[in-house]
Amino acid sequence: MKPDRIYMDNAATTRVDPDVVKAMTLHFSEGFGNSSSLHSFGSDAGRALSKSRETISRRVKARDHRLVFTSGGTESNNLALKGIAFANRKRGKHIITSSIEHDCVLNSCKWLEKQGFDVTYLPVDSEGFVDLGGLENAIRRDTILVSIMHANNEIGTMEPIGEIGRICSDHDVWFHTDACQSFTKAEINLEKQNIDLLTINSHKICGPKGVGGLFIRRDVAIDPIMHGGGQGSGLRSGTVNIPGIVGFAKAVEIMNDSRVEHMTRLRDMLIKGVLDIDGSRLNGPMRKRLCNNAHFSFRHIEGESLIVRLDLKGIAASTGSACSSGSLEPGHVLTAIGLEPEYTNGSVRMSLGRENTKDEIGYALEALNESVDILRRISPFKN
Amino acid sequence: MKPDRIYMDNAATTRVDPDVVKAMTLHFSEGFGNSSSLHSFGSDAGRALSKSRETISRRVKARDHRLVFTSGGTESNNLALKGIAFANRKRGKHIITSSIEHDCVLNSCKWLEKQGFDVTYLPVDSEGFVDLGGLENAIRRDTILVSIMHANNEIGTMEPIGEIGRICSDHDVWFHTDACQSFTKAEINLEKQNIDLLTINSHKICGPKGVGGLFIRRDVAIDPIMHGGGQGSGLRSGTVNIPGIVGFAKAVEIMNDSRVEHMTRLRDMLIKGVLDIDGSRLNGPMRKRLCNNAHFSFRHIEGESLIVRLDLKGIAASTGSACSSGSLEPGHVLTAIGLEPEYTNGSVRMSLGRENTKDEIGYALEALNESVDILRRISPFKN
Repeated sequence: MKPDRIYMDNAATTRVDPDVVKAMTLHFSEGFGNSSSLHSFGSDAGRALSKSRETISRRVKARDHRLVFTSGGTESNNLALKGIAFANRKRGKHIITSSIEHDCVLNSCKWLEKQGFDVTYLPVDSEGFVDLGGLENAIRRDTILVSIMHANNEIGTMEPIGEIGRICSDHDVWFHTDACQSFTKAEINLEKQNIDLLTINSHKICGPKGVGGLFIRRDVAIDPIMHGGGQGSGLRSGTVNIPGIVGFAKAVEIMNDSRVEHMTRLRDMLIKGVLDIDGSRLNGPMRKRLCNNAHFSFRHIEGESLIVRLDLKGIAASTGSACSSGSLEPGHVLTAIGLEPEYTNGSVRMSLGRENTKDEIGYALEALNESVDILRRISPFKN
Repeated sequence: MKPDRIYMDNAATTRVDPDVVKAMTLHFSEGFGNSSSLHSFGSDAGRALSKSRETISRRVKARDHRLVFTSGGTESNNLALKGIAFANRKRGKHIITSSIEHDCVLNSCKWLEKQGFDVTYLPVDSEGFVDLGGLENAIRRDTILVSIMHANNEIGTMEPIGEIGRICSDHDVWFHTDACQSFTKAEINLEKQNIDLLTINSHKICGPKGVGGLFIRRDVAIDPIMHGGGQGSGLRSGTVNIPGIVGFAKAVEIMNDSRVEHMTRLRDMLIKGVLDIDGSRLNGPMRKRLCNNAHFSFRHIEGESLIVRLDLKGIAASTGSACSSGSLEPGHVLTAIGLEPEYTNGSVRMSLGRENTKDEIGYALEALNESVDILRRISPFKN
């Protein structure tokens, strides 16, 4: 490992915080019991579980929600969509989502369509915002769920979830939001924002991989998707991952406003610097943008080549979401915002973390300028 | 934590080995990338994933199987059953399993029955063995899968999976076995034993919680149950839990024959000692028994009271599987082996680990003798 590498792909995953590792290690070696066991090892584990649940629940002001722990954001989103669909198929078969959701929401929806459900994929505007009037028009008598993400994982658009929640509440339709990118980075208040189901995960906020959660309002009818011993109030069978959950809670505890401000400052410095590069553009909005997300397109440049060049200079960035890396198709998000063809291939997402520094931003800007310059000179697309 | 506690509930979960913690820690702090990312952090993670996959695959002589990583045994079993069922519903709707499977197999089957599938639950004999003739008779033209566990999690019966595999292969039916309890503790050879799908997990062998796997023979048609970014060859979406997988592989590496022999010796010493107690019996077989499992019943005694007494003496044991702890119903396994009513309530599972010592077995035997004696004196069941 080169110690001098600069990591700017925190939307893909993050370095686990040393304090999180410490908290988990205690539960690997000492408090390692199965929280379902009756003996003292089990009750020690059960106490750690309760404490972690409280820490995480407090962060979103949960009052009437239970928190079901899962293996991550993907499972939480699968559970929310399929669990609601299967439990409420007699009430209705219509689900509304947006066209820029994460693949795990879109592909769960596609699978549900094969099972006889009907899904509306709302369009977004050029900055990635869902149209609230359009949402209201799409709600039907048989609509059982609206699932619209909080912050987009590629272009950082923060959807107006408070307003979406109010519309859903007015129409008596459950509202699920995927907050994998925004949890602890932007305010979430389950009650004020009328959120019935909330997906969160750990490894985007310096917690461990393999842990996520789904908050579910107590009166929501939902089926499990993982059957077994009945853990997680019957909603998520499988031995509870206590060390992972303890680590997740510690990561939540650590994340605070000053870290968010730090990331916002660096993000703005980065955006300002990149927009000075000729033929560059920012994707996603300038305001109402996730604190650590910057996503650019460079005219007449191939994004993958740029990522490779940056990597050679020790900078880790991404073309889009890590999940779809490797595919050369323009992503569904860039297609949905209607990005002009000369821009779609030349996209780079730089997602910051609390470990990034001003110096790193400066270095990244130099590297970007130089790389874009070289790639333009050898580009087959140029005029 | 009392350092002097004796842990004899290794079938529920195990203490993570310090070397496993060390291996994981490196991937929490340094090699923490997302294995789907294109940059060097991603490729470092990808290499760790490949290496871990090889280590684990070697252990079961996998040649024509791919290994899909999951969040644990429960998910692997859900994937095997539901994935096969959904992908092959046009070929047939019949599944065969046994009546002593883990809850995650049984409850997945019950769920599949609601979706229109037909499930045969094979009975077992008084030691927990599935009858091979009965299995052969149960196979129909529309049978798509036989799922029978390797080692029973409660009473330690080792099913004859080699013979079951041969029968399935002869009848051209896919064979899945849940090896959560036996993996690395008993020989598994995917080819020789004609196993098409194999469930394994990490936290029963001193690896971390939250990680498991499913080996799937390459020609098996199977659908994913978790939809999303298409990780795990499209079969298991969600960010790959690299630290967990690295820890799992390290746990596999550490587990060797001498540890199995150590556990077998202690188990035999424990069984011999307990059978000297008046009114005791061993559940499950004496031979063909999982190396670390001992499961007893004491006539006219309430198992939960015994567990509590043992716990007060610093010994952690269990009444049955951790998943169903808390329920006062006699478990489905004891019911299936036809245990006499005066025994069913007084059951204790003591599952050993490599850290247990002869002295601990001696102490546990003393504690058992004393506790059984006291409980019998105050028992409302006694004559």
